[in-house]
Amino acid sequence: MKNFKVVLEYDGTNYHGWQVQTNAISIQEIIEKALETLLREKVRTYVSGRTDSGVHAKNQVINFKVSTINMKPEKLMVGLNCLLPEDVAIKNVEEVPIDFDSRKSARSKIYRYVILNRKAPTALERHRCWHVRAKLDVDLMNSCAGYLVGEHDFSSFRGTRCNASHAVRKIFRAAFTAQEDDFIHFEIEGRGFLKHMVRNIVGTLVDVGMGKTTLTEFKSIIDAKDRKVAGLNAPPQGLFLQAVNY
Amino acid sequence: MKNFKVVLEYDGTNYHGWQVQTNAISIQEIIEKALETLLREKVRTYVSGRTDSGVHAKNQVINFKVSTINMKPEKLMVGLNCLLPEDVAIKNVEEVPIDFDSRKSARSKIYRYVILNRKAPTALERHRCWHVRAKLDVDLMNSCAGYLVGEHDFSSFRGTRCNASHAVRKIFRAAFTAQEDDFIHFEIEGRGFLKHMVRNIVGTLVDVGMGKTTLTEFKSIIDAKDRKVAGLNAPPQGLFLQAVNY
Repeated sequence: MKNFKVVLEYDGTNYHGWQVQTNAISIQEIIEKALETLLREKVRTYVSGRTDSGVHAKNQVINFKVSTINMKPEKLMVGLNCLLPEDVAIKNVEEVPIDFDSRKSARSKIYRYVILNRKAPTALERHRCWHVRAKLDVDLMNSCAGYLVGEHDFSSFRGTRCNASHAVRKIFRAAFTAQEDDFIHFEIEGRGFLKHMVRNIVGTLVDVGMGKTTLTEFKSIIDAKDRKVAGLNAPPQGLFLQAVNY
Repeated sequence: MKNFKVVLEYDGTNYHGWQVQTNAISIQEIIEKALETLLREKVRTYVSGRTDSGVHAKNQVINFKVSTINMKPEKLMVGLNCLLPEDVAIKNVEEVPIDFDSRKSARSKIYRYVILNRKAPTALERHRCWHVRAKLDVDLMNSCAGYLVGEHDFSSFRGTRCNASHAVRKIFRAAFTAQEDDFIHFEIEGRGFLKHMVRNIVGTLVDVGMGKTTLTEFKSIIDAKDRKVAGLNAPPQGLFLQAVNY
């Protein structure tokens, strides 16, 4: 039995998220289909964490196990890229110890959320950002983001139908940085995340940036441990799974 | 008579370039159609410079003149964005002196060419870069790019069917910079450019980066003033008209 770790990039625009489901196309389905074609056996993939419908990944990590294989990792990468549609790209394939698990072995995950903050829309990045027209106070949003760092109960930012056993998560860093052309990047790194957690945090921080929520109110939203007090779920197309560290 | 300057962004993927033509959809056509719908008269637009099929623009500039108008520039922008498809976005509209001409009044134009330099393809940026698998020597490419700066006869990089009266152009700067995730940006600023000039330069510089052309050979390619001695035309999807300065 051999275990392979695969790093992949995908444009989530045309997919109903990572996980296989009936009546909708998922990234997992097309990856497993490509692996089956290439390896001539049913292959089950294990992902570092599911991404939702419309969410992108720069460096998603999966692993899969096969009993027999006579293909070098480099060949596997080339073969998969030939079979996959161009909105899914394999960036690396390597053999890893048999106990490597893309989800459980992860030390941290980094998400990036991209906001375009200007009146005019964007043509080039229209599927890769959230267009917020009202001028945001990024310094204030950054002060609030500081409260997220550390170990907290993130119930206020937990999506419905999240089936994690508890809502305590550890965040290593969370900050906004201004980019060229009125783009703002929010990067957050943590041990793990709850369903919809990053998008719910961004939605709430945008309320802060617009002046709808104060710094004190943001702190009490965290403390409330109640999804009903936080802001809206930011749209999926601004979210990127940037990296998974092992 | 009033004169309006319009800054626009477009994703060139689905268009046959800027200029109106029969049997193919152009950006000029859809802009003029939107202006006609909004202003209820035929409007002719003047562009800072045509872009080819598949080439993008971050800040293309056009101007148009109308006899009567009872709409504020801000309203014009909002109205146009409502009418245009989402791969074309109006970023700014302002009234300018009657003698402003988007092409003739330009002091300089900046183009960016994006190269992805790694073995693995990209899913997210697949329509926004040239994927070059062989490792490029960016330092050497930068040394060669230095030769482009100044006033030169660029006949070696002039596209066929270019109808400029001569090939002498002044380049203010030209350099490659490494970006995150194996991307490389080439930025070139000049008073004006010949047809296909930036893509022909990039194609030739990539030959340098691959070791096919030496620094001395690159210099003699410029001096030769002969299109036949230079490299291939780099693909359109990596090219962006970044800015036009007035």
